[in-house]
Amino acid sequence: MDTLFSNVTVVTMDEELRVLFSAFVGVTDGKISYLSKEAPTEQPKQIINGEGMVLMPGLINCHTHLPMSPLRGYADDVDLATWLNDYIFPREDRLDGRCVKAATLLSIAECLRFGTTSVSDMYYFCDEVAQAVAESGIKANISRAITYFGDDFDFEKDSRCQELVALKEKWHGYDNSRIRIEAAIHGEYTSNHQVWEQVSDYAKAEGLRMHVHLSETKSEHEGAKERHGLTPAQVLDCHRVFDVPAIAAHCVWVEDEDMQLLAKRGVTAVHNPCSNLKLASGCARVQDMVKAGMNVALGTDSNASNNTLDLFEEIRAATYMAKGASLDPKALPAQAALLMATVCGARAQGRQDECGMIKLGLDADLILLDFTQPHLMPCHNVMSHLAYCVNGHDVVMTMVRGKILYSAGKYHTIDLNAVVKEFADYVMPKMFGREEEKLG
Amino acid sequence: MDTLFSNVTVVTMDEELRVLFSAFVGVTDGKISYLSKEAPTEQPKQIINGEGMVLMPGLINCHTHLPMSPLRGYADDVDLATWLNDYIFPREDRLDGRCVKAATLLSIAECLRFGTTSVSDMYYFCDEVAQAVAESGIKANISRAITYFGDDFDFEKDSRCQELVALKEKWHGYDNSRIRIEAAIHGEYTSNHQVWEQVSDYAKAEGLRMHVHLSETKSEHEGAKERHGLTPAQVLDCHRVFDVPAIAAHCVWVEDEDMQLLAKRGVTAVHNPCSNLKLASGCARVQDMVKAGMNVALGTDSNASNNTLDLFEEIRAATYMAKGASLDPKALPAQAALLMATVCGARAQGRQDECGMIKLGLDADLILLDFTQPHLMPCHNVMSHLAYCVNGHDVVMTMVRGKILYSAGKYHTIDLNAVVKEFADYVMPKMFGREEEKLG
Repeated sequence: MDTLFSNVTVVTMDEELRVLFSAFVGVTDGKISYLSKEAPTEQPKQIINGEGMVLMPGLINCHTHLPMSPLRGYADDVDLATWLNDYIFPREDRLDGRCVKAATLLSIAECLRFGTTSVSDMYYFCDEVAQAVAESGIKANISRAITYFGDDFDFEKDSRCQELVALKEKWHGYDNSRIRIEAAIHGEYTSNHQVWEQVSDYAKAEGLRMHVHLSETKSEHEGAKERHGLTPAQVLDCHRVFDVPAIAAHCVWVEDEDMQLLAKRGVTAVHNPCSNLKLASGCARVQDMVKAGMNVALGTDSNASNNTLDLFEEIRAATYMAKGASLDPKALPAQAALLMATVCGARAQGRQDECGMIKLGLDADLILLDFTQPHLMPCHNVMSHLAYCVNGHDVVMTMVRGKILYSAGKYHTIDLNAVVKEFADYVMPKMFGREEEKLG
Repeated sequence: MDTLFSNVTVVTMDEELRVLFSAFVGVTDGKISYLSKEAPTEQPKQIINGEGMVLMPGLINCHTHLPMSPLRGYADDVDLATWLNDYIFPREDRLDGRCVKAATLLSIAECLRFGTTSVSDMYYFCDEVAQAVAESGIKANISRAITYFGDDFDFEKDSRCQELVALKEKWHGYDNSRIRIEAAIHGEYTSNHQVWEQVSDYAKAEGLRMHVHLSETKSEHEGAKERHGLTPAQVLDCHRVFDVPAIAAHCVWVEDEDMQLLAKRGVTAVHNPCSNLKLASGCARVQDMVKAGMNVALGTDSNASNNTLDLFEEIRAATYMAKGASLDPKALPAQAALLMATVCGARAQGRQDECGMIKLGLDADLILLDFTQPHLMPCHNVMSHLAYCVNGHDVVMTMVRGKILYSAGKYHTIDLNAVVKEFADYVMPKMFGREEEKLG
């Protein structure tokens, strides 16, 4: 046994949502190898004293854009069109692979610090995203967002699609599938049926999953109906996008029939409550989607629109938003929101046999939280505290496949000082120019 | 000069909302005595290096019930009637002064840790609340909630009112007005016109301010209209409650005419977004109240309904709720929410000449935040980060009147171990009985 967590409160997130007090969790060769109220007889190489601590599965962030960290807080309190056209797009135009690598490492440091062990990322310069993921030890499903505004799309000739192909060849399955590559169509409104069909056919042929933005804003949703006489979900479905397992990010404006369709097609909705509130996109009908039989997971969206990657904040925001919108304090209870951030996230990533629970044989993707602080006293109900009192700052250790990537303020795979220096020397001057170098 | 913060980013919250970079703030005899981009010539007794840090005014929590910490997370995800009748009231019946003192100290530790330097509290066993406040060094406006369900109320004979009188005699003005006593009517629906008039007349005669719950739930608001043909704001106003400066907590269901009335009477609305969302009370129309000319401050409500006393979470929740409800991302920008938690809070407490800004001559009620962590990089706009990225965990020092009460994990006036022991030995057994002692 490599590591033993002793005398710890274990929130398993298993089928019975068991919580074990003063329990023991052992890790061997990156897997959970022991789980009991009794101490093991075997001597572990390392013991982590879990007194006063809670051990739970690492959180799974199913929709984000890690390379956007340089734009965090760059344009708040403006409308979406201004945000995109006057602030985000002009700066993104200046990005290069070197920026993306440093930016992704900074975001991964934030993820690890706040207890996230796996992410579903959609962006570009994905080779550099994958390099950062590979170095850092986090898990990721990485997708290259395809946009296309012409009318003669050819997958074989399109440079973005060829990036996807190269990415798949180089990174899909890396490190025993710690990295997986997915296909991605940015959205219905940023491409056409040629793209949808050809990218989806490629994904199906290669056994890749799909990541797409869906009905995030009212104008996007209504626009599709004007353009096609169909909702975004319906039109993408007609053109084979949901022939492979898919993540549909946001789903704020999906209609009842969309929910039925998406449930039947096994599509996961990824709810991003903080982004949806901050950008005023609307309120996703999470409970209705669950009732319709959809898998619903959680995401942070990028730290340019949120502005943090703390998934515990999304857990709380999801419960608050559901209760507030329905005027029902029983709506989306703590357990349901915690499931969205763990078990449902693993399912959304196709990793349900690998992580999302504390269970023998699964990967040791584990986080430890300090429950001895004043704001967590007393503790009548651990899961309630995880939803309503905890945030990412309470995480004191983050482990992926048995390897500690973050603990007590230290990043064990990321040289944060080097990242900060790279931001000062290269990323900020490149993206914001000399006149704004001071911002770095 | 007692203390100098050097090379620090200063968010003044002054009339021009100035932010000074690499600045110097000096503290002498509990007051802010120096504020400049230049280092002072005078040698301070103590220098706090502010590089990478942000210094801002301590936050002001204008509606809470500090002694409720033993009930934190005791009953979540239930409807309000069940929460009150089956969980909260039966446990509150077991409270005594000793419980209240320990519970208040625990809550104050949480406040200090999260950057709150002044609170407006409404509860009972207020002598013990005042003792805890006095010992801890935090500022507080303390009020004894009056409820009365009979029809022959007599202020002179009512034990609760006599508690208020004793409280006022003993504590009002304590430590150069660090503690102030206020009158409090729990709510329109928990008392009658005899109470409103007699308590208000006492407050007016003694120069006390008033604290009242107002239109928190729809049933409370509509109930008043059925009972009196008037809204809660109107009926309380008719019976002299707003003859003194008042805090009206919640104001979720106030109508346009109420806003006009409350603005005219100088009443502060205290917005408690997390509590209102979690208990599904509704969405206060903050922007309309501000437009009507009302002062609007922020509160956490108790940690039984929230479930933390982190006012930074309320700042973010206030902005999110306003944007989400209006579908306007420009609604309630960062600066407006930060003003609610500082300047508007000081005004609500009658402390506007004493705190709420960083300004020469005001009390040195200051908090220091560590801006060197990954989730705060880069920093394009400090005030945006304070609203959208920061939470109470980023606070590394809390000072009231020049005295450091919390720094780097240490409480300098509260013996947290003793409080924890008192919870285990007395509070939890007393409130939850033998069968539930383990919960402590």
